[in-house]
Amino acid sequence: MAELKGACIIGQSGGPTSVINASAYGVIRTALDNPNITGVYGAEHGIVGVLNDRLFDMSKEDPKELELLKYTPSSALGSCRYKMKDPDVDDTDYKRILEVFKKHDVRYFFYNGGNDSMDTCNKISKYMQKVGYDCRVMGVPKTIDNDLFGTDHCPGFASAAKYIATSCMEVWHDARVYDKGMVCIIEIMGRHAGWLTAASVLACEYGAGPDLIYVPEVDFDMDKFLADVERIYKEKGNVMVAVSEGIHYADGSFVSEAKTSATDGFGHAQLGGLAALLANVVKERTGAKVRGIELSLLQRCGAHLASQTDIEESFMAGKAAVENAVAGITDKMVAFERATENGHYVCKTKLLNLTDVANFEKKVPLEWINDEHNGIKHEFVDYALPLIQGETKMVKEDSLPRFAKLKKVIAE
Amino acid sequence: MAELKGACIIGQSGGPTSVINASAYGVIRTALDNPNITGVYGAEHGIVGVLNDRLFDMSKEDPKELELLKYTPSSALGSCRYKMKDPDVDDTDYKRILEVFKKHDVRYFFYNGGNDSMDTCNKISKYMQKVGYDCRVMGVPKTIDNDLFGTDHCPGFASAAKYIATSCMEVWHDARVYDKGMVCIIEIMGRHAGWLTAASVLACEYGAGPDLIYVPEVDFDMDKFLADVERIYKEKGNVMVAVSEGIHYADGSFVSEAKTSATDGFGHAQLGGLAALLANVVKERTGAKVRGIELSLLQRCGAHLASQTDIEESFMAGKAAVENAVAGITDKMVAFERATENGHYVCKTKLLNLTDVANFEKKVPLEWINDEHNGIKHEFVDYALPLIQGETKMVKEDSLPRFAKLKKVIAE
Repeated sequence: MAELKGACIIGQSGGPTSVINASAYGVIRTALDNPNITGVYGAEHGIVGVLNDRLFDMSKEDPKELELLKYTPSSALGSCRYKMKDPDVDDTDYKRILEVFKKHDVRYFFYNGGNDSMDTCNKISKYMQKVGYDCRVMGVPKTIDNDLFGTDHCPGFASAAKYIATSCMEVWHDARVYDKGMVCIIEIMGRHAGWLTAASVLACEYGAGPDLIYVPEVDFDMDKFLADVERIYKEKGNVMVAVSEGIHYADGSFVSEAKTSATDGFGHAQLGGLAALLANVVKERTGAKVRGIELSLLQRCGAHLASQTDIEESFMAGKAAVENAVAGITDKMVAFERATENGHYVCKTKLLNLTDVANFEKKVPLEWINDEHNGIKHEFVDYALPLIQGETKMVKEDSLPRFAKLKKVIAE
Repeated sequence: MAELKGACIIGQSGGPTSVINASAYGVIRTALDNPNITGVYGAEHGIVGVLNDRLFDMSKEDPKELELLKYTPSSALGSCRYKMKDPDVDDTDYKRILEVFKKHDVRYFFYNGGNDSMDTCNKISKYMQKVGYDCRVMGVPKTIDNDLFGTDHCPGFASAAKYIATSCMEVWHDARVYDKGMVCIIEIMGRHAGWLTAASVLACEYGAGPDLIYVPEVDFDMDKFLADVERIYKEKGNVMVAVSEGIHYADGSFVSEAKTSATDGFGHAQLGGLAALLANVVKERTGAKVRGIELSLLQRCGAHLASQTDIEESFMAGKAAVENAVAGITDKMVAFERATENGHYVCKTKLLNLTDVANFEKKVPLEWINDEHNGIKHEFVDYALPLIQGETKMVKEDSLPRFAKLKKVIAE
């Protein structure tokens, strides 16, 4: 493959994670150190920043601040949720992207995101090929949802999983403290895939996890749920439930949006989320003290509890994207392959075709969900436990996180 | 003071904290090692366990598991919210307590809790004196609310404050990631005192904290709040708000319970909490994307983020209670005094009369709240920052917390 000299752009897209910046740093550091890459630009708010020609010159940043990106949550360059149009219908954006690429002599495009971002990558790459502009495009995966196709796991999942398991263990201890019992319902992210909610089973492994776990891979039955809760409440006096935000009835409607006896009957929107809704239904049915807890953004930005394994793997994904692109590869997403060496978990990168990855979703295998559809089997623990190992090396200042502070100098 | 030989009881009461077990361990370890103390019993669910003669023999526990109590959140012995009657009106409970004390030759009673628990201590002590039963009673403070009278700060506050500050910093990074702005409202515990909500200002100190902070020490004005949010949203594009669960209107009614345009007008209870309610009001007014986050139980059980200073001080409070009681002191609560040695913060114990502590509440000084009543001044940072220093030495197993597992052998 011919050597290709030119600048690169790294953009971040979709919902952030605790470690997406570790991947961005993997790209940035590797690109800055590579003689074939003549400029390293960070796009402000992903592809939107390219369209607006808002590119940060990463060579202007203090290398020490860049290094702190490994431990800084959220998307340091800014993110977006911008859906690219079909270029055959409307190629306005593509023309603009080409214009900006040409202006800055961009020959490498790295996009750090989930399903939709891989679709963006794919479309841009196809367009550049069509118009004969030599540019290598690589996807760098991220998603706490762990739902990307073809990869053993996704950067970002393990850190969120570790946050969830740890928080469940702590709440478990708190939510059974009184002489009177309690039902505690924890709402966890995951609209279509239950990987994160399943991670609560790690807490069970250490004796302090949910009694019941509901994931969106199977249909939710409110009567069965209430019967489950009532049974355990009678048996144990305390119940802890982990529930995915995306649980749905057999007809496909989300429980969070459905009318229940807890609504006012006039169709007004629920103010609280699913946890509050279920807490109210359980309270009406059992009379028990109930608390609904939504882990909300905390679970995806809790960098202080990030898995060091996840951090290193996320960095590795970014690094591999640059190294492969410089070596001549394009139109791929970096993915992970699990192996065992001397009885220990190891993770290696591999490459997937963007066209194979974009717009598919990987769900929790049905064989890992119990027959009652209210729990997760041990196979999941075997899968997830190696991923959450290692404590973050986050730098602290006065015992609070010292996150990266970027200058964000706009490239002229 | 005459030497007093006999057993001791340690009980835990009220809402748990991340470090209340560090205080319990301070009592248990010190008592087990003291030759004058002939038995060390943990009351199951505080005073309720005494009434039910449900006492755990702490000498039967593995010393290593006991030591893990320093890093185990929530009340390991179980807690209660049991209000003791006035013994002049109904002394049934007091007679029963005396009976149980006599049965186990209990001569020392340590009660680990907040305002109400100090009241319980005080009543029991007065009763024992009245009936001529020689028993020394000491209060060991705990409360994340930091509202105990006469002490510089309360064990448990700093760890919750550190959790809140860290979480605010992380959410701050997450909640401004998109090209479109957002208003994020974080609800923090504190029904009457704003210490915990004020702790969010520590995040501001490090460039990633709330733009607006509302505490219950001053009246809340919804119109002023909405104007504040709107102004900052226009200026910066993103707004982060920290709000105490206990904010109230000028007439004293809690905002969380008040009717607003967000309610359905039929007086149905809000399912979500205050954050959800305010988020809805802000959304209606500004049209902005809004997210309400309730830190809920997470903030008081987040032991993985505990302040090691808080852990050591909590242990010290329990130890001091035993040492002082054995030395002949009774009817006191252990409290903290702040001093400076060689320019460094140090914390020493002192003793307060139970009668002076019970049923008073210490609030955030009005001078520490800004004139606009929507922010906290730097004086608070000087006060709180030393308290949150040091990382917990929590033991981990497979990168998840290894909490204490007690056998809880009932004393015969």
